[in-house]
Amino acid sequence: MKKGFTLWFTGMSGSGKSTLAELVEKELLERGLNVEILDGDVIRTNLSKGLGFSQEDRDINIRRVGFVCNLLTRNGAIAIAACISPYKAIRDENRAMIGRFVEVYCQAPIEKLIERDPKGLYKKALAGEIKGFTGIDDPYEEPEKAEIVVNTAEETIEESVQKILRTLELMGHIDASDAQTEYSEEEEEEIKKRLADLGYI
Amino acid sequence: MKKGFTLWFTGMSGSGKSTLAELVEKELLERGLNVEILDGDVIRTNLSKGLGFSQEDRDINIRRVGFVCNLLTRNGAIAIAACISPYKAIRDENRAMIGRFVEVYCQAPIEKLIERDPKGLYKKALAGEIKGFTGIDDPYEEPEKAEIVVNTAEETIEESVQKILRTLELMGHIDASDAQTEYSEEEEEEIKKRLADLGYI
Repeated sequence: MKKGFTLWFTGMSGSGKSTLAELVEKELLERGLNVEILDGDVIRTNLSKGLGFSQEDRDINIRRVGFVCNLLTRNGAIAIAACISPYKAIRDENRAMIGRFVEVYCQAPIEKLIERDPKGLYKKALAGEIKGFTGIDDPYEEPEKAEIVVNTAEETIEESVQKILRTLELMGHIDASDAQTEYSEEEEEEIKKRLADLGYI
Repeated sequence: MKKGFTLWFTGMSGSGKSTLAELVEKELLERGLNVEILDGDVIRTNLSKGLGFSQEDRDINIRRVGFVCNLLTRNGAIAIAACISPYKAIRDENRAMIGRFVEVYCQAPIEKLIERDPKGLYKKALAGEIKGFTGIDDPYEEPEKAEIVVNTAEETIEESVQKILRTLELMGHIDASDAQTEYSEEEEEEIKKRLADLGYI
């Protein structure tokens, strides 16, 4: 039996974390694996009601998500976290605790996110109606060594999903699938180069 | 592979929840199973810092423990909760959510608990230095249909542990062990009668 691991999606609001997390979950479930999504909203309802969005409260929230991911991971499940998690130090703290940790940085230019703005949050933040909004008046600290970077402004959703799955296969976290892949040889090379640079392969 | 389940210890402070939980965990780990203890103190550090002991805060805390037990259980692990969890409604809410839920009521006369008082908490509560202390000035609502009742004032620790393991075996949650049992035929009959009364066997 494969060991558990944590797939940690990080990125600004609207960058595609939840969408990608759900599609990856669907694919992993179809492969018969145990998967749990810990989505920012679910966690704030079930584990962190009452916490706000100050740095301190965000840190507590992300530590809690990490605590639960760790429990799932060490019991053989796949934990998928999808939280903005803007501060590098706490993400790295979770990485160190969990060990089997794969970071997916959902990257997109802020202009694009402001343009998309499905929940109208950037509009409110730019108007000063929401304070401490990541990317507007609160920092987003980019991951330096994310195992996976998806550029959701340039790639299609299918390409991003395939990139994530292929990386998990190459890292040995999941078995290789013989399903048709949605990306090019060039993209395969890019995935392999990243994993080689990080010392995985 | 066996399915996961939640073993939920409830009872007043000093009734033996954590001690029994740790011994049962040890035994289950030795049998090669995936087990996590969610102890009241661990949870209050990792998931519920900032929550107090009002009924509302206790309810939130116990719901969080239930949320995590549910995640572990449905991913095939054994979650062991050891929390006072004094209110029946919330325990039953967790039972309904989790499904594969085995309640262990750690029973002992309050006089005995006051006599033991390893942390000196009853003394403080009786002196009015701690408010809202379960069993003193806050209610403990006894389970009506606990799968297991251990009377830690009368049974030895070994007897209680064996009663718990034997019940889990009879319920089909764990495989029967051929290890020597520490209890009598009469006790075996008592376990079976309880499970039959609850409609399990």
